[in-house]
Amino acid sequence: MPLDPTFAVPACHAEIHITAAGGPDVLQRIERPVPRCGASDVLIRVASAGVNRHDVNQRRRGPDTVHSPVPGLEVSGVVVRVGDDVTDVRIGDAVCALVNGGGYAEYALADHAQVLPVPAGLSLRDAAALPEALFTTAHNFFNVARLAPGESVLIHGGTSGVGSLAIQVLTARGHAVYATCGSDEKCAISRTLGAVDAFNYRTGAFADALKAARGGEGVDVILDMAGVVYGRQNVDALNRRGRIVHLSPGGGADLSFPLRELMRKEAVVTGSLLRPLPDIEKAAIAQWLRAQVWPLIGTRVKPIIAQRLPLAQASQAHEILEAGDVAGKILLDVAHAFD
Amino acid sequence: MPLDPTFAVPACHAEIHITAAGGPDVLQRIERPVPRCGASDVLIRVASAGVNRHDVNQRRRGPDTVHSPVPGLEVSGVVVRVGDDVTDVRIGDAVCALVNGGGYAEYALADHAQVLPVPAGLSLRDAAALPEALFTTAHNFFNVARLAPGESVLIHGGTSGVGSLAIQVLTARGHAVYATCGSDEKCAISRTLGAVDAFNYRTGAFADALKAARGGEGVDVILDMAGVVYGRQNVDALNRRGRIVHLSPGGGADLSFPLRELMRKEAVVTGSLLRPLPDIEKAAIAQWLRAQVWPLIGTRVKPIIAQRLPLAQASQAHEILEAGDVAGKILLDVAHAFD
Ligand SMILES: NC(=O)c1ccc[n+]([C@@H]2O[C@H](COP(=O)([O-])OP(=O)(O)OC[C@H]3O[C@@H](n4cnc5c(N)ncnc54)[C@H](OP(=O)(O)O)[C@@H]3O)[C@@H](O)[C@H]2O)c1
Ligand SMILES: NC(=O)c1ccc[n+]([C@@H]2O[C@H](COP(=O)([O-])OP(=O)(O)OC[C@H]3O[C@@H](n4cnc5c(N)ncnc54)[C@H](OP(=O)(O)O)[C@@H]3O)[C@@H](O)[C@H]2O)c1
Repeated sequence: MPLDPTFAVPACHAEIHITAAGGPDVLQRIERPVPRCGASDVLIRVASAGVNRHDVNQRRRGPDTVHSPVPGLEVSGVVVRVGDDVTDVRIGDAVCALVNGGGYAEYALADHAQVLPVPAGLSLRDAAALPEALFTTAHNFFNVARLAPGESVLIHGGTSGVGSLAIQVLTARGHAVYATCGSDEKCAISRTLGAVDAFNYRTGAFADALKAARGGEGVDVILDMAGVVYGRQNVDALNRRGRIVHLSPGGGADLSFPLRELMRKEAVVTGSLLRPLPDIEKAAIAQWLRAQVWPLIGTRVKPIIAQRLPLAQASQAHEILEAGDVAGKILLDVAHAFD
Repeated sequence: MPLDPTFAVPACHAEIHITAAGGPDVLQRIERPVPRCGASDVLIRVASAGVNRHDVNQRRRGPDTVHSPVPGLEVSGVVVRVGDDVTDVRIGDAVCALVNGGGYAEYALADHAQVLPVPAGLSLRDAAALPEALFTTAHNFFNVARLAPGESVLIHGGTSGVGSLAIQVLTARGHAVYATCGSDEKCAISRTLGAVDAFNYRTGAFADALKAARGGEGVDVILDMAGVVYGRQNVDALNRRGRIVHLSPGGGADLSFPLRELMRKEAVVTGSLLRPLPDIEKAAIAQWLRAQVWPLIGTRVKPIIAQRLPLAQASQAHEILEAGDVAGKILLDVAHAFD
């Protein structure tokens, strides 16, 4: 997929801005200069951008002084410029990347070390569904929870953007994976993705169901994006020396759990935020993914694309994500009006 | 200190029993057969027994089917019998040991692998103050919290049996140690033991005081025996990737803390119980202590003996511990009526 040698990056492009705190309609298409490429950056001509819960939360909070007004944490596309210090990525490369905001746009900047090739067996557009979920999976299971070979796992939100890829990656690596979901249909999807079993969290206590399914045992690691709601059940569902890793406080602020039971199991409660990680750590995650996960993509691991919408319909994409009936990733496909 | 060659273990000895759930007066002296030595046990003629908060809690709960009715988790004394499989401990050895209950007695059984020599520079009786505090220190800081060289530490209860030895051990190993205590006098003692600074938890928020003392920084590991009271302050007082290790739920049941702040710091909340650890893990701790801590004892590390009482006054020892004005360890000294 070589870049046309006559191709020239335009001066301006379209971006989706968070114009105020509010509902999906605060997202507005705005024309702006294409961002300038720093020494360690690459400029990507975006093919597709992934939509994440994070973008919705950022939109609700509204513009601030630390984040880009343009949401979007992951893109796929073709590299059209590289910074002076960049030697490992070339103009014309088909890539996907973790980006620090700015993904909902025709052009996006990425740190060269957070760029990965489009894996064999995946389309350029679909590759936009990988970075945020896979960086999150790798960091939380392997860096934070130190998941060991043979350990078992429970993922709350088995069909989320993160969960639907994590189930596949961990299953491919030989872990027994369980999931919770908000409907029987999503439980069925989780099983199709490789989960040994999945439990509808709306119809019963998952900790009891999980232990019944495992002959009384719990799991070694729990990935929790449900927030503060499962303090007691999570500790209950854990094996000795198990770890609970939180990705989101959800609708709450304080997490509460039975302390003596945690001590008795020598269990760990922890969590992380991907976005503020230092670049050097994101670079290490990218290298690990390239070596350990990229060879599985297209065969054992395939992103689920829940829906595709044109970039200009970012508001509708948020509406759909917020309605909650999504399994997998919503992508914004970019048509290049300015080229 | 060789054992008199004519010495013979008597058939009976005195033990202190928890006769009911209740106050210190439920502890009663009872004559019983000396316990039988299993294949991997050693029988110790007790010189002194350490008194721990655990014993008080056990007494309050009363007799049960899993614990020995005789409290006491640590003793010092002379080995008078060894089991058939024991090759590393000899009759006549002056030792101290972690025991699984049964310490408040004239004779006590210990697993050979939880027995350590009386360190040079310490009396036989004072060595009874070491095992529980040092096994707890070693396990929680090095196994559970994985304390790394150069990391800083906060210990709640700097003058407790555990805290007063932990401050000295960690200071000797080059860690910056801080403590909290319930009085200015105990804060002064903590500083004498090596703490860089100590904060009276009754007169202000320790997290603010600690960060002020450290130029805005927190610590890497917190050892908490205060229970569920410090969820928010502990997370606040922690550095990025810090660990909070709980030894006791204290008077509460559920621990609560701000989840987003925990995630932002990638911090860990955990804890442990020493008593139910598998023997093989206790043996590994004993080996680590012998290599790493025993060379420091008598010089850099000295147990604080708060008070000595005869074994028959175990009730008074509990009264004193419960009154709360103790710095260091209370020992029960054993006079051998039956020899
Ligand atoms: N900390 C980080 O670095 C990081 C990185 C990536 C993502 N995240 C967070 O992780 C979450 C997932 O991200 P995403 O973009 O993949 O979002 P998403 O696709 O919208 O998924 C949210 C998921 O949470 C599940 N969930 C909600 N309440 C639940 C409950 N009570 N029990 C079990 N599952 C529950 C939902 O399950 P159902 O749909 O089945 O109800 C859904 O699968 C979001 O909260 C996001 O902010 C954090
Ligand atoms: N999990 C385990 O394996 C394990 C092993 C050993 C000990 N422990 C537990 O660890 C604790 C210490 O044992 P010990 O025998 O050394 O008991 P101890 O000598 O009675 O000490 C109790 C300590 O807790 C401190 N404390 C109480 N409330 C506090 C608060 N709000 N803030 C700061 N410090 C507070 C006290 O400080 P002040 O006296 O200054 O008020 C005192 O130093 C006990 O709770 C015991 O059960 C657990």
